Amino acid sequence: MSLVVVGSVAYDGLETPHGKVDRILGGSCTYIALAASFFARTKIVAVVGDDFAASDEALLASRGIDLEGLERVPGKTFFWSGVYSADMNDRTTITTDLNVFADFNPNLPESYRSEPYLLLGNIQPALQRSVRAQMNGVRFVGGDTMNYWIGDFREELVTTIREWDFLLINDSEARMLAGEHNLRRAAEKIMEMGPHTLVIKRGEYGAILFQGKQHFMVPGFLLEDIFDPTGAGDCFAGGFMGYLAQQGIRPQHGEIDHQALRRAVIYGSVMGSFCCERFGPDRFRTLTHAQIDDRYREFKAFTNF
Amino acid sequence: MSLVVVGSVAYDGLETPHGKVDRILGGSCTYIALAASFFARTKIVAVVGDDFAASDEALLASRGIDLEGLERVPGKTFFWSGVYSADMNDRTTITTDLNVFADFNPNLPESYRSEPYLLLGNIQPALQRSVRAQMNGVRFVGGDTMNYWIGDFREELVTTIREWDFLLINDSEARMLAGEHNLRRAAEKIMEMGPHTLVIKRGEYGAILFQGKQHFMVPGFLLEDIFDPTGAGDCFAGGFMGYLAQQGIRPQHGEIDHQALRRAVIYGSVMGSFCCERFGPDRFRTLTHAQIDDRYREFKAFTNF
Repeated sequence: MSLVVVGSVAYDGLETPHGKVDRILGGSCTYIALAASFFARTKIVAVVGDDFAASDEALLASRGIDLEGLERVPGKTFFWSGVYSADMNDRTTITTDLNVFADFNPNLPESYRSEPYLLLGNIQPALQRSVRAQMNGVRFVGGDTMNYWIGDFREELVTTIREWDFLLINDSEARMLAGEHNLRRAAEKIMEMGPHTLVIKRGEYGAILFQGKQHFMVPGFLLEDIFDPTGAGDCFAGGFMGYLAQQGIRPQHGEIDHQALRRAVIYGSVMGSFCCERFGPDRFRTLTHAQIDDRYREFKAFTNF
Repeated sequence: MSLVVVGSVAYDGLETPHGKVDRILGGSCTYIALAASFFARTKIVAVVGDDFAASDEALLASRGIDLEGLERVPGKTFFWSGVYSADMNDRTTITTDLNVFADFNPNLPESYRSEPYLLLGNIQPALQRSVRAQMNGVRFVGGDTMNYWIGDFREELVTTIREWDFLLINDSEARMLAGEHNLRRAAEKIMEMGPHTLVIKRGEYGAILFQGKQHFMVPGFLLEDIFDPTGAGDCFAGGFMGYLAQQGIRPQHGEIDHQALRRAVIYGSVMGSFCCERFGPDRFRTLTHAQIDDRYREFKAFTNF
């Protein structure tokens, strides 16, 4: 059983207190798929230009990622660059060149359409809805969004997430979407909009899972060096959904097993933490399943009492 | 076996998004002692003026707190007032009238001096050291400090904490004291200064316990309403130390049982969370042991996976 992922495949220019890279593989779909590929067969839907490097395609292929839905069109690949603050909690965008991504209109290969798991990375809500509509018999669907869509495309976003099983967003976005500062009440309001499961990401402070009346909280992994936080939230999403797909989880009576969701949140946290250890997606070139299992056990060890 | 607590007993003027009180019992010693009193017999060392209300003294006495070390001198009690921001993560000080606290020179009653547990609330480091020196055969000692002492009284503070078993500070203070942004490395540097145990408080994001090579992380309790965060950090300290004193914990070969410290961090978190549910220390007028036990179990429930 495979997982379909839609989002951006991009090049990023990154500057953090640890260094600078002018051009490195990036994009939400890239990070989600790389993280998810450690758990389940992953099929991506994205668009790149004719400058997309064979070595980057080879990295994705080396992780067994299905690239049939990776459209190549004339022009340049989406390019973003930014600079992180000293504490890496803020970043300033320097460049956003949408390039071929501006006309992205995802069209799913026939071989993707009957897959049971769908993860919609952060793109225009109407495009997320169109992808959802192309899938037949999807079992579990959810995704990410951002402040821009919440602010300027609210109606479209609300219509889109009504059909989702889960939503993954960060704390400030949750507050903005709900119009409520208190996270507990914000979560209730968001779950009334459709998703029965909500994960609020809090960056270095971890994540909160809400499902019905239950919630689960995990602190962020305490890294000794954070090289580059780019993509950590997407890797969280990839680990979270990848684990659920690997387990073949499906909702029963509209609900998904709560303990499995908790474990999925830990795997999400594990993958997000690895992502920060190198620039861009470089950590996934060498990451092993044994390292993932070790870090999962570390989470148990430092949270248990 | 009793716990000796030194710090301020004060009146506070508080304004939060939930309301305003002109004058309510406050001060680090007050909050620490109220929280600790649910676990262990607590003896306080502090100074108040002749305006200190009988009803406030009665509240402390109702919790079985030993007031022999509460000095009453002519003049006014320490007064502080402040206004919290909308998200309550920042506060602006409006008034700081030290009053009788300006000449505080703690002198311990004879009946306090042989107690095994000592918690030094946030006061001038030299005064903390003087209190420590008045104790005979103390078994476990630690305390709190703040940015002001770290910045302007660094040498004195470093000399003071060298004799401590544990230090409780917040994350920005830990970074400032260590001169290191990364919390994991900051913790190592601080533990080289003396304390074998360090608790870094992160406000709504919880706390981290460091001891030797081990660490433990707990998220903050997700309150539906935060009325007033004043005193939450001190209540954390009171719950933490109160629990250790209740259990009769003592260091073995210079180390304290790590699992007991983890439970102490949870009891600290429990007491800090209750503190925020009412203005000032009002929650402790009605709090019961059953409610404390229930919340401890809630912590287990929302962190377990």
